[in-house]
Amino acid sequence: MIDYSRDAHDIYRQSFAIIRAEARLERIPDDLEKLAVRVAHSCGMPDVVDDLVFSPGAGASGRAALAAGAPILCDAQMVANGVTRSRIPAGNEVICTLNDPQVPELARQLGTTRSAAALELWRPKLAGAVVAIGNAPTALFRLLEMIDAGAPKPALILGFPVGFVGAAESKDELAANPRGVPFVIVRGRRGGSAMAAAALNALGTEHE
Amino acid sequence: MIDYSRDAHDIYRQSFAIIRAEARLERIPDDLEKLAVRVAHSCGMPDVVDDLVFSPGAGASGRAALAAGAPILCDAQMVANGVTRSRIPAGNEVICTLNDPQVPELARQLGTTRSAAALELWRPKLAGAVVAIGNAPTALFRLLEMIDAGAPKPALILGFPVGFVGAAESKDELAANPRGVPFVIVRGRRGGSAMAAAALNALGTEHE
Repeated sequence: MIDYSRDAHDIYRQSFAIIRAEARLERIPDDLEKLAVRVAHSCGMPDVVDDLVFSPGAGASGRAALAAGAPILCDAQMVANGVTRSRIPAGNEVICTLNDPQVPELARQLGTTRSAAALELWRPKLAGAVVAIGNAPTALFRLLEMIDAGAPKPALILGFPVGFVGAAESKDELAANPRGVPFVIVRGRRGGSAMAAAALNALGTEHE
Repeated sequence: MIDYSRDAHDIYRQSFAIIRAEARLERIPDDLEKLAVRVAHSCGMPDVVDDLVFSPGAGASGRAALAAGAPILCDAQMVANGVTRSRIPAGNEVICTLNDPQVPELARQLGTTRSAAALELWRPKLAGAVVAIGNAPTALFRLLEMIDAGAPKPALILGFPVGFVGAAESKDELAANPRGVPFVIVRGRRGGSAMAAAALNALGTEHE
């Protein structure tokens, strides 16, 4: 027998205690503290907390929207799969339109990526929604363009696109000009579906 | 209009070029170079390449198994969802048993996590399989215990569990005593479903 912890609750408890001992949480507002801890937990990096940027009241706006049953709009199926259904307060719809059969043709028409084109199918659900972007910078850029062109505003953008081309830039664009939309981002190249889902899961319920 | 790249192929090409310029790839064997690049791509961190540890011939063993139609055994649904079906060479089965209805009772009987207990259902598929662990340290520990107790050996373990309790330790245990099983791990706390899926996707086809 190898010696290791086999108790899921104990593993969670120890993990969160290590994060709270190591991460610089002082500047994180109370209503985002659990979100920050859970994002660090998802990636094994307490220092990711240093790169979180957020608008005032972002946590409250997201929590209120989820409690009221707002849909959760995800740019990638891995984000949607990472949403823990038992943490969602009102049986909220979890929607990812990336694999909709209309998307490849929409992408050709719009001259953009499938990840960005998939947002066209979000329009009827966008007002007051909680958006979780955990993969594609082009999806976040496209969302900002749609809002600039008059699309309804979501209640919260969780902006965690990842990578080397456009990820940092798309999150900087949102932070520099939030267009009146509450947001939480991790600035820079880091991000991903696990972080986006963790942020959403933290807002879904107070229970750790 | 915001100025950003909307061409998916161009974004991939640029991303991989940035990683190859920044990452220290010199010590990575030829048959794992694309895997290393794709793992860095999945998390936005070129320095993750410095933490890759692997056994000789791990890439060749994984590629041969996939080409021969080996099943892909994933510890988490997010890993399974991250496997790009068009990159899989032989229509290989992608299996995640975590949500099987037998698992909660198995976990109680075995006194372990659901993630670890779910591996009991891998047994008929384990010989020659490609294992991708992107979430739970207890799943990797359990796999090593099963092999120690005589379970069939997989063709490759992609070991990317993430987190603060057991992640580094489970990967260290595998690297210190691979039990004759080819492996690739990222040592330390970092890991995750995106890295595990990226590693698998890199082995599935030579195409970038």
